[in-house]
Amino acid sequence: MSPQALVFDAYGTLYDVHSVIQRCDQFWPGRGTALSQLWRTKQLEYTWQRSLMRRYAPFSQVTREALAYACQALKLPLASQQEDALMQQYLALAAYADVPDALASLRGRKAILSNGSPDMLDPLVKHSGLAFDAVLSVDAVKVFKPAPEVYQLAVDRLGVPKDAIGFVSSNCWDALGAKSFGFRVYWINRTGAPVDRLGFQPDGRLASLGDLPEVLH
Amino acid sequence: MSPQALVFDAYGTLYDVHSVIQRCDQFWPGRGTALSQLWRTKQLEYTWQRSLMRRYAPFSQVTREALAYACQALKLPLASQQEDALMQQYLALAAYADVPDALASLRGRKAILSNGSPDMLDPLVKHSGLAFDAVLSVDAVKVFKPAPEVYQLAVDRLGVPKDAIGFVSSNCWDALGAKSFGFRVYWINRTGAPVDRLGFQPDGRLASLGDLPEVLH
Repeated sequence: MSPQALVFDAYGTLYDVHSVIQRCDQFWPGRGTALSQLWRTKQLEYTWQRSLMRRYAPFSQVTREALAYACQALKLPLASQQEDALMQQYLALAAYADVPDALASLRGRKAILSNGSPDMLDPLVKHSGLAFDAVLSVDAVKVFKPAPEVYQLAVDRLGVPKDAIGFVSSNCWDALGAKSFGFRVYWINRTGAPVDRLGFQPDGRLASLGDLPEVLH
Repeated sequence: MSPQALVFDAYGTLYDVHSVIQRCDQFWPGRGTALSQLWRTKQLEYTWQRSLMRRYAPFSQVTREALAYACQALKLPLASQQEDALMQQYLALAAYADVPDALASLRGRKAILSNGSPDMLDPLVKHSGLAFDAVLSVDAVKVFKPAPEVYQLAVDRLGVPKDAIGFVSSNCWDALGAKSFGFRVYWINRTGAPVDRLGFQPDGRLASLGDLPEVLH
């Protein structure tokens, strides 16, 4: 049975956070990949740690702080113009190649549910030209994924019961957090990663978002 | 003014989680360091993610699950005897070289506050021969660090107000979680890492636990 609404994770699922590598390489030749990976790692760690500390801060702040940490750890001097330029780059992340056609083929309501604060997320979605019925940010509940309050936000805002929502994420821990909450979950595993050991399994494992229309319809 | 009680993190602060590398290298020559690092990374991620999902599991289970993930990700076949042997190794982690003398020099009450479940933590402390007035596990509150409930456990069990507790950790995010809660915090930064960007600063930054007695007394 098709879900009544499809809810997509943004960063890492629709939009490639590592599309900043080229710009990083311009600033620090040969170090772009290492920087982008550590930046992303710390960004996620800070979302989990701040949530547990009950010290929520918007994703734009967390992302900027993670960048500062990553540059210091890798001994890359970060001028404020470079910091601003990389944060600007985050508003124009590339969509994965499999995204536009897949979204166009999927019937029914489609929404984004993201850690991104509106100041990051809204410009990103607009820049990409992708269309959604709703773009929901955890900023409304002041805690990050995979807290159940985040997934409940989609239920409340879309007015669709949790078991009628299909949730799509490439971040396995996010997919399993959504499964723990009660969504029907499709994990887009583009890299062939193992499933995380968190006590749950995704309902579907797909190698590409392009496989989703066939699975659902 | 000296704190009334000193509370120490265990894994990474008193005990070296990477003292499993040699055993890992026996099973998978040349891969021990990579395995130990990914094992530790996933172990911590799972504590944060499960806490946010409200799906607490004991650290012994989380540690075993993180090992299974890490081996699969690194394509290292893990027989159940190897898994058991490595879990057993975790009960005999080496104390850092600076630990025994520092503990002996520190006056007053000393306790451990750890993510470790009692089935892991108690054998580890016993094996090391280090002596504490209390060994406290997050298992009592069923959530992992850096949730404030964890640090409150030390206040409740030791009967010492939070501003009279000195908290010692090498895990910067743990130190800052404790600072956010209200402890006086000493970050033992053995590796020269940058401070994490979580909105707090430790009260003291020490290169070795051996520097702590001089700072306090």
